Amino acid sequence: MAELKSRRVVLKDYVEGYPTEAHMELLPAAPVDEAEDGSVLVKNLYLSCDPYMRPKMSRPLHQSYTAAFVPGAPITGYGVSEVVRSSTPGVAAGDLVWGMTGWEDYSVIKAPFTAMLTKIQPDDGVPLSYYTGVLGMPGLTAYVGFHHIGSAKPGDAVFVSAASGAVGQLVGQFARLMGCRVVGSAGSKEKVDLLINKFGFHDAFNYKEEDGDLAGALKKRFPDGIDVYFENVGGKMLEAVLLNMKVHGRIAVCGLISQYNLTAGEKEADVGVRNMTSLVAKRVRMQGFIEPDHKHLYPEYRAWVMPHIKEGRVVYVEDVADGLEAAPGALIGLFHGRNVGKQVVKLTTPDTE
Amino acid sequence: MAELKSRRVVLKDYVEGYPTEAHMELLPAAPVDEAEDGSVLVKNLYLSCDPYMRPKMSRPLHQSYTAAFVPGAPITGYGVSEVVRSSTPGVAAGDLVWGMTGWEDYSVIKAPFTAMLTKIQPDDGVPLSYYTGVLGMPGLTAYVGFHHIGSAKPGDAVFVSAASGAVGQLVGQFARLMGCRVVGSAGSKEKVDLLINKFGFHDAFNYKEEDGDLAGALKKRFPDGIDVYFENVGGKMLEAVLLNMKVHGRIAVCGLISQYNLTAGEKEADVGVRNMTSLVAKRVRMQGFIEPDHKHLYPEYRAWVMPHIKEGRVVYVEDVADGLEAAPGALIGLFHGRNVGKQVVKLTTPDTE
Repeated sequence: MAELKSRRVVLKDYVEGYPTEAHMELLPAAPVDEAEDGSVLVKNLYLSCDPYMRPKMSRPLHQSYTAAFVPGAPITGYGVSEVVRSSTPGVAAGDLVWGMTGWEDYSVIKAPFTAMLTKIQPDDGVPLSYYTGVLGMPGLTAYVGFHHIGSAKPGDAVFVSAASGAVGQLVGQFARLMGCRVVGSAGSKEKVDLLINKFGFHDAFNYKEEDGDLAGALKKRFPDGIDVYFENVGGKMLEAVLLNMKVHGRIAVCGLISQYNLTAGEKEADVGVRNMTSLVAKRVRMQGFIEPDHKHLYPEYRAWVMPHIKEGRVVYVEDVADGLEAAPGALIGLFHGRNVGKQVVKLTTPDTE
Repeated sequence: MAELKSRRVVLKDYVEGYPTEAHMELLPAAPVDEAEDGSVLVKNLYLSCDPYMRPKMSRPLHQSYTAAFVPGAPITGYGVSEVVRSSTPGVAAGDLVWGMTGWEDYSVIKAPFTAMLTKIQPDDGVPLSYYTGVLGMPGLTAYVGFHHIGSAKPGDAVFVSAASGAVGQLVGQFARLMGCRVVGSAGSKEKVDLLINKFGFHDAFNYKEEDGDLAGALKKRFPDGIDVYFENVGGKMLEAVLLNMKVHGRIAVCGLISQYNLTAGEKEADVGVRNMTSLVAKRVRMQGFIEPDHKHLYPEYRAWVMPHIKEGRVVYVEDVADGLEAAPGALIGLFHGRNVGKQVVKLTTPDTE
């Protein structure tokens, strides 16, 4: 085999505020490191852009569940890859896998990430890119958050923010399948249309067009209150939701994207959440969660969701950027809500021989 | 029986900000209403001052779990009483009871509150006033919040705010009994001494003497983080706690006394809680609760706590105000932290015959 060469996207320096193209750099193709014993060499096919990646771009101040990226090293994230060489048992050349990989043409995956690689059956009849979304981390996130953390029941009134995103679009559909009434919020007319016409939300609204009265927007759509809030944004939306929760309501805190790009000064100045007394008055349970804690539920989730996908009851909208060179812009766009649906990057690896 | 006359403390008008003596009035003795069929006429012996009473003094804006007081009508709350006449089955003249009563010498208790009256065995060997505290609502609140909502386990690192109060002092002792390491915060040196020397907290601090660095005060006392936070105050303390929670920590939200006396303007200006992203990073469960939802656990709680009290493993400190005329000042003092221990009012009913 000819020597493999790989381009890579590295973080140039830690980010404060919104990330820009200047924070990342695409390095020209260089020889791929020799694969150590126990590692897996993969060719990356799809890379996933996810909100949780933003805190990893910040200078690490507080302990987090996920280590910060290292300036100068490739950005890492979920992806779909083809195995080139493997010295890990159970994974062989030619296998398709999904898991944590690097933002590069080829990656050498080492422990502990080799153990997290999940094999994909090539003939399973769904697009490979779905393993960065509905069949990957965002899918299990939606499933765990809605069913387990949110303890959703048929008939519940469900609200989802960032509802057209990788996770939100699934929560809405899972809620509809369970017989809940589900309302979503998003940041453009196009997304609101998608929520209602494509994903089957019962109602939806553009949070930018409610004259700042988010509590009123929710009151109108949930006159009897919200049983389950699937939280993706935080800040003012959370404040408004707290005023509109039903007694014994549940808030599954998946993410707080409104907070990730605040500068230190902005955090200091204005991002507190008011209305916390509603937690007591309404006896609300509010619980943060992350998908890695619930990996053991993946087989159960996959078995449940696969027939829904194949028979058209669950659809999935992706926003596909083309090529590794487009990856930084795709990730940046996520934090401005430019993506419509799950943001993926499709790699078109240059011939290296 | 001679005609009974009763003084009463009424709310004069709704309160904004801190309540003052001007918001309440002690009305002179007037004949007690005829007891309707099914009601219970009681002579009040002890009245309880509790933080939850403050939201009931505000003009009702939002739905709450407890109705607002009615201006001109007596303030209501928990108390210990002796039954004078009863047309409710199971309750007879001469019985001692605890439950919801009025701030007056004599009260006519009607449905649904008659069903909430709990009989006290006169020979049970504990002070009657304890039924406003360790053997009443605050006791069950501490038990449910710590064991059930907080899911405390032996060895847990436990933090309690407002730790010398009616509920906090019990949470600290229950934590010690379970084999947890427990730290409390309070607002004076006297209270901090009480926490360590009387209630057996392992450590304690005066939140007013930490130069505003509550997060640092907690970090010093919980270098490995907090497993269970029993929340009584909210605001800045909650912000600091969020930064110091352990992964999979639990926050039992009992009350948020820092918020109750804020004016509308103050609420608008500055009371948001930051650091909510810790909920996700640490996968924290934060849950509001109120004692009335858990009444069915009272017999279990009483059976558990009674031997601890009798054998001296659980002690209870009360701050007893003397006479109905002292009740408004006692309630007001609670919101300024003037009480040391559980605030009770002992009634010395004037002879009315």
